[in-house]
Amino acid sequence: MSAEVEEMLKRFSAFKNVQGIIVVDNDGIPIKTTMEYTTTVHYAALMQTLAEKARQVVLDLDAANEFVLIRMRTLKSEIIVAPSDDYFIVVIQDPCD
Amino acid sequence: MSAEVEEMLKRFSAFKNVQGIIVVDNDGIPIKTTMEYTTTVHYAALMQTLAEKARQVVLDLDAANEFVLIRMRTLKSEIIVAPSDDYFIVVIQDPCD
Repeated sequence: MSAEVEEMLKRFSAFKNVQGIIVVDNDGIPIKTTMEYTTTVHYAALMQTLAEKARQVVLDLDAANEFVLIRMRTLKSEIIVAPSDDYFIVVIQDPCD
Repeated sequence: MSAEVEEMLKRFSAFKNVQGIIVVDNDGIPIKTTMEYTTTVHYAALMQTLAEKARQVVLDLDAANEFVLIRMRTLKSEIIVAPSDDYFIVVIQDPCD
């Protein structure tokens, strides 16, 4: 685990109401998690497909642009997906007011 | 255009640094826009695929949950996609600090 990942984890852990944090490599394999196994694997696989879609959409609109971060608000939680070169981080938190 | 859509447009127009707002029906057809035609059609089609992916991902994680809003940060802009029953709204704004 690189210092960069540790720094990212530390930064996201400071967010209010964090339910869980998962670090996923670009093959969709979770390499670090604060959640239980089944939930981790489920989030990792689905968020990889969402991040890939976001990346495609942004490039399709402007090939010189780049996807940086998604915040997805749902009725029950807020999910943040932030990619890096070799992995992406998923943060699940209670919805904020 | 329903009062609900007008209210949504008014709400999003108040956001800082808004570059454009597009209202798209569930077939991907733009029904209202503040941007030029080609850009509008491009955003409408791509954001429909992103919103559909987000909806699928959220339901797959929890069938009792619902996707409410996406904020996608890119190097050059922030794109917000907010669905409703019969349409969704896309807001493109300059990235905030």
